Amino acid sequence: MRGVRAPCTLRRMADHPDRISVLAIAGSCRRRSFNRALLRAARARAPAGVDIGEFDPSRLPFFDGDVEEAGDPEAVRELKAAMHAADLVLLVTPEYNAGLPAVLKNAVDWGSRPPRPQAWDGRPVAIMGATPGRLGTALAQRSLRESLAGLNAHVMPQPRILLPGAARLFDDDLRLTDAATAERLDKFMAAAAEWARRFR
Amino acid sequence: MRGVRAPCTLRRMADHPDRISVLAIAGSCRRRSFNRALLRAARARAPAGVDIGEFDPSRLPFFDGDVEEAGDPEAVRELKAAMHAADLVLLVTPEYNAGLPAVLKNAVDWGSRPPRPQAWDGRPVAIMGATPGRLGTALAQRSLRESLAGLNAHVMPQPRILLPGAARLFDDDLRLTDAATAERLDKFMAAAAEWARRFR
Repeated sequence: MRGVRAPCTLRRMADHPDRISVLAIAGSCRRRSFNRALLRAARARAPAGVDIGEFDPSRLPFFDGDVEEAGDPEAVRELKAAMHAADLVLLVTPEYNAGLPAVLKNAVDWGSRPPRPQAWDGRPVAIMGATPGRLGTALAQRSLRESLAGLNAHVMPQPRILLPGAARLFDDDLRLTDAATAERLDKFMAAAAEWARRFR
Repeated sequence: MRGVRAPCTLRRMADHPDRISVLAIAGSCRRRSFNRALLRAARARAPAGVDIGEFDPSRLPFFDGDVEEAGDPEAVRELKAAMHAADLVLLVTPEYNAGLPAVLKNAVDWGSRPPRPQAWDGRPVAIMGATPGRLGTALAQRSLRESLAGLNAHVMPQPRILLPGAARLFDDDLRLTDAATAERLDKFMAAAAEWARRFR
């Protein structure tokens, strides 16, 4: 499936009842993004039995009711299919001007559209985010939780990953070098896998 | 200027000191949008001396730091120039999943970028929105105000236009037919012009 990167497994539960398939969506387009680096660290450190695929939300067009009426574009169909196949959606968000990046909100909105049940309904979700500044994506995560609650997504309340001062946590090659953050990430991913299992 | 629709005047203040040039940005792409219909009504009923041009935010790419670093795309340059030339920015927003449409948040974010002063800094802004549902865009407008406050835009606090049940306010050709709403719109536009004059 184009747009979902290897090693993308996204196996259906019935195929591998012991495994958890995670669909990750990162809300930053830039190559040297701290949030994409955070997602790479999460993939590298994922617990055994957790497979993380990724969907690139910049492939989606802006939500447009007329486009939808003419039939979902290919990228939208792929997003919805990948979400329905996932045991958990992992959203990785920067914060832009006290809110969500457009590219991520757009994926939330396309995912919320018919057919019913829409793709967020009853879906386990975990959220993390990093920012070079001081808020650590607190406001972006609040917006995301508010949108997702209305869609009946089941967002893991704790533990949370909000990383201020991200420049200090990664090296020049954007590898996670901060030990305390790595430990939090391990706990977060273990909890996310457990959260996904609750809703099977 | 492509993307800014006729009758677009966007005259600089010095050219016509008695006139107010408004740049409108509507956050809905669909042709039969209530918010686009609301903007058309605002343009048709604009007070004397108020010229309303429009920028189509769906022409912008998703914000991407790498794209920005390579030089602002043409649509981004046009957005920033149109904002800097405007006495007031009129934002017309739907509400998607308790938040902003991506297409509008994206315009806010591109407008917030260098060179300094960024295009929202000190800019008078008025916000209105319509929704078929019951909230009348209350949550979308809250998000927008929060983002714009951080950017030092001067958002008119009152009067406000939040229109729930929009389907009852427009006819089949999406002309505003509700007299009370038309009256509120007239007051809103007069107040917006006065608000813009305060910051000259």
